[in-house]
Amino acid sequence: MEFASDNTSPVPPQVLAALTAANTGAQMPYGNDTVMEAVRARVRAVFEAPEAAVYLVATGTAANVLSLATFCPPWGAIYCHRVAHIEEDECGAPEFYTGGSKLVLIDGDHAKMTPEGLRRALGFTARAGVHNVQRGMLSLTNSTENGTIYTPAEVAALTAEAKAYGLPSHMDGARFTNALVSAGCSAAEMTWKAGIDVLSFGGTKNGLLGVEAVVIFDPTKAWEFELRRKRGGHLFSKHRYLSAQMLAYLTDDLWLENARRANAAAARLSKGIAAIPGASLVHPTQANAVFAAWPRSGHIRAQAAGAHYYLWPGDQSMEGPGEESLAARLVCSWSTTDAEIDAMVAAVRG
Amino acid sequence: MEFASDNTSPVPPQVLAALTAANTGAQMPYGNDTVMEAVRARVRAVFEAPEAAVYLVATGTAANVLSLATFCPPWGAIYCHRVAHIEEDECGAPEFYTGGSKLVLIDGDHAKMTPEGLRRALGFTARAGVHNVQRGMLSLTNSTENGTIYTPAEVAALTAEAKAYGLPSHMDGARFTNALVSAGCSAAEMTWKAGIDVLSFGGTKNGLLGVEAVVIFDPTKAWEFELRRKRGGHLFSKHRYLSAQMLAYLTDDLWLENARRANAAAARLSKGIAAIPGASLVHPTQANAVFAAWPRSGHIRAQAAGAHYYLWPGDQSMEGPGEESLAARLVCSWSTTDAEIDAMVAAVRG
Amino acid sequence: MEFASDNTSPVPPQVLAALTAANTGAQMPYGNDTVMEAVRARVRAVFEAPEAAVYLVATGTAANVLSLATFCPPWGAIYCHRVAHIEEDECGAPEFYTGGSKLVLIDGDHAKMTPEGLRRALGFTARAGVHNVQRGMLSLTNSTENGTIYTPAEVAALTAEAKAYGLPSHMDGARFTNALVSAGCSAAEMTWKAGIDVLSFGGTKNGLLGVEAVVIFDPTKAWEFELRRKRGGHLFSKHRYLSAQMLAYLTDDLWLENARRANAAAARLSKGIAAIPGASLVHPTQANAVFAAWPRSGHIRAQAAGAHYYLWPGDQSMEGPGEESLAARLVCSWSTTDAEIDAMVAAVRG
Amino acid sequence: MEFASDNTSPVPPQVLAALTAANTGAQMPYGNDTVMEAVRARVRAVFEAPEAAVYLVATGTAANVLSLATFCPPWGAIYCHRVAHIEEDECGAPEFYTGGSKLVLIDGDHAKMTPEGLRRALGFTARAGVHNVQRGMLSLTNSTENGTIYTPAEVAALTAEAKAYGLPSHMDGARFTNALVSAGCSAAEMTWKAGIDVLSFGGTKNGLLGVEAVVIFDPTKAWEFELRRKRGGHLFSKHRYLSAQMLAYLTDDLWLENARRANAAAARLSKGIAAIPGASLVHPTQANAVFAAWPRSGHIRAQAAGAHYYLWPGDQSMEGPGEESLAARLVCSWSTTDAEIDAMVAAVRG
Repeated sequence: MEFASDNTSPVPPQVLAALTAANTGAQMPYGNDTVMEAVRARVRAVFEAPEAAVYLVATGTAANVLSLATFCPPWGAIYCHRVAHIEEDECGAPEFYTGGSKLVLIDGDHAKMTPEGLRRALGFTARAGVHNVQRGMLSLTNSTENGTIYTPAEVAALTAEAKAYGLPSHMDGARFTNALVSAGCSAAEMTWKAGIDVLSFGGTKNGLLGVEAVVIFDPTKAWEFELRRKRGGHLFSKHRYLSAQMLAYLTDDLWLENARRANAAAARLSKGIAAIPGASLVHPTQANAVFAAWPRSGHIRAQAAGAHYYLWPGDQSMEGPGEESLAARLVCSWSTTDAEIDAMVAAVRG
Repeated sequence: MEFASDNTSPVPPQVLAALTAANTGAQMPYGNDTVMEAVRARVRAVFEAPEAAVYLVATGTAANVLSLATFCPPWGAIYCHRVAHIEEDECGAPEFYTGGSKLVLIDGDHAKMTPEGLRRALGFTARAGVHNVQRGMLSLTNSTENGTIYTPAEVAALTAEAKAYGLPSHMDGARFTNALVSAGCSAAEMTWKAGIDVLSFGGTKNGLLGVEAVVIFDPTKAWEFELRRKRGGHLFSKHRYLSAQMLAYLTDDLWLENARRANAAAARLSKGIAAIPGASLVHPTQANAVFAAWPRSGHIRAQAAGAHYYLWPGDQSMEGPGEESLAARLVCSWSTTDAEIDAMVAAVRG
Repeated sequence: MEFASDNTSPVPPQVLAALTAANTGAQMPYGNDTVMEAVRARVRAVFEAPEAAVYLVATGTAANVLSLATFCPPWGAIYCHRVAHIEEDECGAPEFYTGGSKLVLIDGDHAKMTPEGLRRALGFTARAGVHNVQRGMLSLTNSTENGTIYTPAEVAALTAEAKAYGLPSHMDGARFTNALVSAGCSAAEMTWKAGIDVLSFGGTKNGLLGVEAVVIFDPTKAWEFELRRKRGGHLFSKHRYLSAQMLAYLTDDLWLENARRANAAAARLSKGIAAIPGASLVHPTQANAVFAAWPRSGHIRAQAAGAHYYLWPGDQSMEGPGEESLAARLVCSWSTTDAEIDAMVAAVRG
Repeated sequence: MEFASDNTSPVPPQVLAALTAANTGAQMPYGNDTVMEAVRARVRAVFEAPEAAVYLVATGTAANVLSLATFCPPWGAIYCHRVAHIEEDECGAPEFYTGGSKLVLIDGDHAKMTPEGLRRALGFTARAGVHNVQRGMLSLTNSTENGTIYTPAEVAALTAEAKAYGLPSHMDGARFTNALVSAGCSAAEMTWKAGIDVLSFGGTKNGLLGVEAVVIFDPTKAWEFELRRKRGGHLFSKHRYLSAQMLAYLTDDLWLENARRANAAAARLSKGIAAIPGASLVHPTQANAVFAAWPRSGHIRAQAAGAHYYLWPGDQSMEGPGEESLAARLVCSWSTTDAEIDAMVAAVRG
């Protein structure tokens, strides 16, 4: 009963097999391996973007902050949701990498910015000329930190607000594929066709050991990205092992299959929890995470049964006298089993 | 009728006279001038802080951000009000100087944080260990950006919240003396006795050409401050001309006298405006700035009569059909005359 | 005939087996995996340092620059050899991570600083008080960029110069184990017993996919390191896969065995090349890299036979009329075979 | 007998008079004062550069590092002489402002780079692609830190090397006017006509309280400079007092007159010292500083007579048994008198 995060999960055997296959003979380092050529071609095909620059790094934070630093100057405002990973979970890495830009936080239900909220923030920035930070770029997360998704149309509506000021748009796609299979659209439709300029294309949470691709749709910035990656210490010498993972990911639809499994697991879990008397969903379940609330006794039962998950937000406590409702985040992964889900639901139900 | 800002005002003759007096013979550079010895002694006496480290810089932003960078690590959160100068008017200088810290914005009426708001923000920070920025320091502005003041007791209540986590506290005192004479307390009571560790002690807005002192009450950090000042390009070679200004400021109570005049002007203006039918104060007038609103026709008359001031917030427009109320900021300085004030009130009244 | 770098080599089967073994069930992310507990214990045992803080990152640059940034302030001078990796091969990552420190370059034969050279540089720094950068820290590479090693006594002599000013010392040990088995001393003797405060303990060049440990002998700085690692984007979510590699490395002396094989290969190659008429060593062969020079025709033969290596320094050219001597760097790894070596020697000899 | 530095000198009465003249009524802040319009026009006229962007800051370090940061990316190498002020006397401010660029130090007699030395350094940079810092920009000082000057032809020869790689060139002109009157050329010939893109045009050392202009000959970068100046805390609110100084400087040839007096003083001093038996010049005297060496007894006599100057380099000592020669730096300013010079020469001669 593992629902703490999708990053607690192992990787499918295909991924380890790919590492083994890559482990023969010499390979040029630093992204000059032959496997990377295949990755580049494959990513471009998947995104229908033959000119895109494609790079691999090993963490989602690296993918995000290198993307932001490449597209936003030090005096730029980065518009993101108040609960965005770049705001809440990267310990100021965006500020560090950009040289001191400012994250401008936008509210919105279920971790989704609205065009109106973004427009208001854009209008407010730079109202005082040189005295303020300047408009920098947009960053949105898909699927979001609350397990919801932006549709391509919603993405396009947000990037249009940014483009009205000539600003680039970044998508934090740590769970990109979960959003993609949920929306039922193509990778191109979800990204550059909707106005995204640079994508953190996550692999780690969806079945890899530790690889994220950065896809830069306009390659003008590619060399700057390479320099920033190097200066950040994120250029791998034995790069072939990143390449091999990403190639396995994009082979035989493993990436899509993993995301479909995770999303299906979340749907099953969501349905099961929601049907319990006294339980309710906190956010709609649209990807691989369930946000739900139920009375304290259900949490005590679940944890006694060995369930791993977080109360969310974290300032709630299992301790307490009464039966008030406590909210939780339950994240499913490609490896979540129906048995785990059913056991979880049964434990909560009691 | 000059109410655009206190930084549009000239300086009193004593200050120019002090420059002339300092302009004889050779003086050691970089703060080693003999005048600075007198300044140091005088500031320590004024603040009843014989151990305090005292430095001069030429802009308020420099005073603020060097103070912040000295006391807050790159991964620290700086707690300040949403409309703080460091957030709104320094183009990201705090993020630049600190190496990427994050300003955590706290709401509160009339530009004043409340202990509850600060406590909530402090509790929320670092909830996720290494993944979040860490608690860094408090920065409050006195007098505030809305022309209000914190009393010593209010300062102490806020710094107590910071100290509960072992955090240092900074006061942006670009208009410190205006707050001081309004509160009617001593400089010590307003600062270190109320828990302030480092003060930006403003001179420029209150009658100098361009000098601010940084007063560090615990001198442990003094050498780091000196290095940061040098690296910031804020160490003056012909430092005597900064020293001379500050010494004149603290001689014969010029600093207090200037602030009293500015505050009295604001009080007279505030009273005059508030008495006009249809006009009202937006914030209490407690220092040298008046925030008030009155119908559009009054603005048209005032500006036609040559009044200089800003609509505040800036997204209002003089253009428009009706008689709706428009809010304005009117700042008085040591050089504001009763005649200007009375002419302004008369113009608004019509 | 692969001598381009030790980072072009694959990894031993034990390492892949360890990944497979680690790939079962859920594991807490971000270094809280159970494997990491074993790694921590093992590293502490190997270094006879029960209090040491131990962290894993995935690249050598990350290990180096996070170490430097943790121990050196932005205004500090980092003393290193002119050909140090941190100076020549990290695209300014040290300056980026430290917030703008300055690398002070020290000359010395065979990529080794001398105590005299270091002493001179230390004496020169900070001669002008606040106007100069201040003395920061020492960083030495072992084995060096020229395939030589510092003995523990030589390390101690250098760190003693740093300690005379109270400065910490870092060892870039991307090829630490090659130095260790060459010197025939213990890991403790090579590091903290010789005055090293923080070590980049390399795994990648010596048989791992991509893992380096940072060993901080005085754990006072541990939390700051963790924050800097997170902000740098170098904290892995599926950290177990780093842990597993490092544990395999330190099991059954794989790390030592790999280094012995690489060093033995280099010794065989060095001896073979040196015996060729017209060939000579440029630097003594003390670890796993051979720096030698021989006439152009020998290079033409070697490359025609499929040898991979770099002319070193890189401004030499294979093109040219005559038979002048061209210098080369030949790096051996754990996977270099005697057959490769002998073929190389034969090709050069002609 | 004041020869410690040109920054120990006072300012001419015209400068204080200009401050007084500027001290009437209200003036818009932050560079929007009416005096600045005149300054801008005057600087453009002086430099025959009608499109140049002109900004004022208060310290030479600020002028230099804002210029460098505007033209050099964080991963860029800045080529300068080993004894350049930006390397030796700014405590790492260039690294701080640029976000971690690297100063590449070039040797050359009398603090002057040679085209050959620069060419060699340029060729060496970026030899390893993304692994190295990249070629960034050139920075040369005129007059130099050793009291010599570059002629326009020499400047052009150096900037031509930079331009061969498409790099911009900066001139640190803290003592620009001393170089100008020494070379006998126009300001345009010394700068943009010789390939300079951005100039730190010093006023402080040549008779102002604290003002330097930054002249950007290609204004494309102007807005970025303004943002960096603001973020650096170098935008003055009561900017009129900077403007007034600079306008006085450029009125009635005060700048040229001051420099001529300082240079003439240095020439007289240089001639006087060089004529003393046992004394000799260390560097040619081409601007306002004399570098000379003479026996210890002469130093003892000079200092006993009240002379202020520095032994240069600073590791020499007045203490010692014998009569060995000690080198010194003697800087003249606009206010140096013939009487001081003659007394100095007499004291050294004994």
